[in-house]
Parts: sequence; structure tokens; C-alpha cells
Amino acid sequence: MSEPKRIPSGLARDAAIDILVAQGVPAVEAALVSEALIAADLRGIDTHGLACLKDYVTALQEGRIKAHPDIVTTRRFPWAARLDADNGLGPLAATLGMRAAIESAEIFGIGATGILRSNHFGAAGVYAAMAAEAGCVGIVAANASAVAAPHGANAPFLGTNPLAVAIPAGTHAPFILDMATSEGSRKKVRKALDQGVAIPSGWALGPDGQPTTDPAEALKGVMLPFGGAKGSGLSMVVDILAGVMTGAEFGGRVLSVMTNQDRESGNGHFMLAFKVSAFIDEAAFTHRMEDEIARLRALPASRGFESVCYPGERSAKERSERLAWGIPMSAALIDGLVALGGGRLLSGVGN
Amino acid sequence: MSEPKRIPSGLARDAAIDILVAQGVPAVEAALVSEALIAADLRGIDTHGLACLKDYVTALQEGRIKAHPDIVTTRRFPWAARLDADNGLGPLAATLGMRAAIESAEIFGIGATGILRSNHFGAAGVYAAMAAEAGCVGIVAANASAVAAPHGANAPFLGTNPLAVAIPAGTHAPFILDMATSEGSRKKVRKALDQGVAIPSGWALGPDGQPTTDPAEALKGVMLPFGGAKGSGLSMVVDILAGVMTGAEFGGRVLSVMTNQDRESGNGHFMLAFKVSAFIDEAAFTHRMEDEIARLRALPASRGFESVCYPGERSAKERSERLAWGIPMSAALIDGLVALGGGRLLSGVGN
Repeated sequence: MSEPKRIPSGLARDAAIDILVAQGVPAVEAALVSEALIAADLRGIDTHGLACLKDYVTALQEGRIKAHPDIVTTRRFPWAARLDADNGLGPLAATLGMRAAIESAEIFGIGATGILRSNHFGAAGVYAAMAAEAGCVGIVAANASAVAAPHGANAPFLGTNPLAVAIPAGTHAPFILDMATSEGSRKKVRKALDQGVAIPSGWALGPDGQPTTDPAEALKGVMLPFGGAKGSGLSMVVDILAGVMTGAEFGGRVLSVMTNQDRESGNGHFMLAFKVSAFIDEAAFTHRMEDEIARLRALPASRGFESVCYPGERSAKERSERLAWGIPMSAALIDGLVALGGGRLLSGVGN
Repeated sequence: MSEPKRIPSGLARDAAIDILVAQGVPAVEAALVSEALIAADLRGIDTHGLACLKDYVTALQEGRIKAHPDIVTTRRFPWAARLDADNGLGPLAATLGMRAAIESAEIFGIGATGILRSNHFGAAGVYAAMAAEAGCVGIVAANASAVAAPHGANAPFLGTNPLAVAIPAGTHAPFILDMATSEGSRKKVRKALDQGVAIPSGWALGPDGQPTTDPAEALKGVMLPFGGAKGSGLSMVVDILAGVMTGAEFGGRVLSVMTNQDRESGNGHFMLAFKVSAFIDEAAFTHRMEDEIARLRALPASRGFESVCYPGERSAKERSERLAWGIPMSAALIDGLVALGGGRLLSGVGN
């Protein structure tokens, strides 16, 4: 396999715009979607960046996602929006949803958006980070197609159901926790099977409904939420806020953008942003947050760790490096983007 | 050991009021604290109910907690309160804080309170449940004295840092997730040592900074947050919202009510309540939430489980039973309450 090539992020973003515009997505909306995907690539979350475009394009071509949705926002309170994404691209709905929340927070100190009829939106942390950049705590929750069994159950019901929290941190990169509330993934289980190694306990139940560390048994069974009963409860909170409360699908009925042949995927998202200055002077908060980080970093590291860092720290370093040197992309990914319609900018780049 | 006695909850609550009033706590405030503790007892969370009174009384007697605090609430936005608890009893500050958040939610659809200079407040779920009873999603986060090492570290920094989320559920008992973001507890590790059994992996690091399942090694080392890096990140979110943002202590400097001889404990709490009707008609939400629960319950149970239930379901059953039949209390607890000043109502009851 050849070395990955470093593609300048602006070039990659523009290629993504070309690809989406070729599918009938209006240019401004294509730019918002591309920005959100590139933001994930820049942070090193390669699985949630431009790599998503292949499935998005297929869904657009098959009419399973609308290229030109009629997005409607309604409000019952000045701080609370409900956004009907009209089965458009998820990153578009999520970006507009978080923008609406931040706009409300600029005026009222707080804003929230419930989003229904959306689709796969990439990385939750990207939208939470938008809030942190605006001096807000940002919280993003999204439900997804059923992959994991709730605590005590033996059938899929909960999705990866990501939860992200971003918090401004003064001179430091923002704190960004961005996590699936499911544990492991089928992909990782298959990898363990190929490598002939056990999977960690807590990842899956076997077909007999008992916990297993055997990847072959796990593939016949069901995945689990992270962190046992607690993680299962959190994953349900995500499904309720993002699904039950928004009017989206919920309770195991969201479909996957990869496989939804029957109807809309029905993903729901919940976005919340509030100014830290609603509670404390921004300068005082900054000072205290820097103190929190300094104290954390001063802790002795445990075995196998060079130093102690906070969520968002490593992805910020990755971002700086990738902004300067480009996003590493495999020849296969680049050729794939060319095949999708990115040839104007990327033709020949993968060789 | 004799059988526990069933004490009517009203009687137990009134005995708690007697105990607190005898320490100089004004009657109305004593009633609020007692209600909060009894609410934990009713839900079967015996460790966070009247069992807490012993430490509270000692702290009141030694002047480490103020019996008659001068609680001050300030606001920067109509929905956002900051409550300086003046080193009073934690359940008092937490009850007033959640009341303020709910009052704002009744008018604006949302309310939040940041609480500083508080103390141990009992069970987080009790305050979150207050919001659910008012048709709101309730979120409660609280920091606590350092017991657990953040992911990658080898020294205590994070407290039990509880996080609770309560959501109304129509005809069903409210969904109430109430969890420590730390994993296990030193008490449980000591029990495992006594019983000669291993502790689950992920609970603790040994003195060498490596994960251990040996309780003796764990007691020489440090406890961990639940759920690995994800749980560690969530526990930090709790410390930031409840501590950094409120003006309370944070970053490993909150003290324990049991051991804080030097200064105020400095606990911080964060409370958020918002109306589900800010996003969707309450009737539609209720219908959908009941559907969510019905679908969850219809899942096949995994081995060792009779049925699948949601967080808050079992504690609601316990509550109904204890409201009808009384709260089971050991003779030792009852005698302890008599010794603390509960004799007017409980004298002789423990025999």
C-alpha cells in the first residue's frame, strides 16, 4: 500500500463541494456540508470526514436523501427551535441547527434546537465545537440505527448514539468530549476475529445472551453500550432527547444511510448552547478553566501514558498539523473522490 | 442482626426535622433537607437518605457546615441563577437551586442554576426528579472530593461526580438516570478483599499505575471513572459545569463533609430544567415516551435478567412500596437517629 498523500484542507473541501454540487446540492449548502466533514478530517476523525461522501452520494443518487431539502425552523420559545430537515443531508441540518442555537445564545444566553427527519451527520464534536468557539458550552446528541442492546436486553435497540460536549478553554484548545455511547463496533470485532484475538469484556453478548470476549460469538450476538448500565442509560437519554422529543424516529427505528431502502432514515439530533457568561464572568471562567487543565496536566501519568491530557487536546494538535500540512489521504480515498466527481481538483493527485 | 423495621416515611421525615432543628437549622429549611433525604430513602438509595444525617450533624456541631446560612441568588439572565449556598447543608441548596430552575422553566421554558459553596447533597436523582414532576427534563451534575484518576493519570482528581437526568414519562414512572461517574467504590473494594474475590477490571489501578483486579493492590492504588476514557471525560464535564463554571471548588479541591477540617468543602452543583413542550406538544411527547418504553420492554431479556426495564422503573416500585409500608431501617440506624435527637418520635422504635 502506498503512503497517504497530504491534501491541503481547502482543496479537499472544494473537491467535496464539487462532488455535492454535481449531485444537485445547492452550492452554499454543499459548502456547509463540506466544511463539517473537513472539520472531522482535520481533527483526525477520518471515518467521519470525506470518507462519508461515498454513502451520501449513493443515497442522493437513489433519492434516499434529498439534494435540495425544504428545511423549516419553528419556535415555541425564543431560545428553542425545532428544525425539520426534510430528509436532507445530516451535516447541513446539524450545522444550521447549531447555528440557530448559538444565535439564540448570543441574545438570550441559551439556545437549543431539536432536529427531525435528518440523516447521518458525521462527527458530533464538530457541531459542539462551533458552540465552544462562540464562548458557549455546546452539547450535541444524536440517535442512529440500532446496533446495541440496552442493559439487560438481548437485541439491538440503541444506535451508536453519539454525545458530544464542548467547552471553551481560554488560551487552550477547547475541551471537546465526542463519544459514541455504544462500545466498540462490529468493524473492530471483525478485525479481532481476523487477528485471532479476544475482544474486551463488555463489548458484546454472544447468541446465548451471555457476555463474551470471543469475536466469533460476538458477531452472532449483539453489541453493548459503553460502561454497562450507566452507559446504557446515557444512550437512552440521547435517544429520548434527539428522537422522542424532536419528533424524529426513536426506539430502534432510525435507519442507516447505508441500508435504508424503505423510507427516510429518520435521524434526530439535539443541540444545546449556552454562554458560560450566564453564570460567571467570562474572564473568571477562562482563568478557572486554565487552572483546571493545568492541575490535570500536573497529575502523574499511569503506565503506558506519557502525560495526562484532556478530551479535545490531541485532536486540536492534529488539527493544527493538518491545517499546516494537509490531510493525509490514501490513494484509494482520493481515487474514490475523483470517481464521485472530485476530478476537477483531485485528478491525478492520488498517484 | 435483627430484621429491619418498617418506619412510616412521614414519621422518619419528622424525626429528621427534629434532629436538624435541634442543631439550630430553621424549621422550614430542616423540612426541605429532610424531604430530600427521605426521597432518597423512598427510592431505595439508603446510603443517601437519613443515613447521611450522622455526618451532617457532626459537621453542624463542629461548625463545618452552617445551620443558618445566608443563601444569596443572583441572575444575569431570567433563566440563569447563581446560588451562593454560604456553606449550608447541601440538600437545602440543591432543593432551592432546582426550584429556581423549575420556576424559570415555568415562565421561559428553561431554567438553570449554578450553585457554589455547597456541601454533600445526597442523591442527585432526587433533584432531577423534581424537574420531571414539573414536566421538564431535569439534569443535575455535582462535583465531590477527589477519589478517581482521570484517564491516563495515576492520582485522584475526580470525585464520584454524580450525573442525573430525569425525563417525564406520561403514565409511567419518570425515566431517572442517577449515576456516579466514578466506577465502584473503596467500600466495595474492601468488601471484595474481605470476601477474597477479585474486583472487576476497570475499577482501579494498582500502586504501579497498572490496571488491577486484586482488591489489595487496588486499595494501595487509585480508583477509576466508569467506562474508561469516555466516563473520565464525562466526569470532567461534571467538574467543569458544577465547579469551574459556578465558582465552586474544582480540579480535585472539593473536600469531603466527613473529613474537611480545614475549610469549607466547596462543593458545586449544576441544575438544568427545560420543558419538553418547548420542542413538542406535551401530549405527543407523552405518547412517544410511552412508545419508547413499550418497545424497550418488548425486547428479549439477556441471561440473568427477568425482563428489560428503564432507569427509574425499579426505584419507582420501591418508592410505592415504601410509601405504603414504610422505609426499612436497621435497629442500629434507628438508635443512631434517636441518639442524634430523633427520640421524640423514634424512641423505642428500634427495639
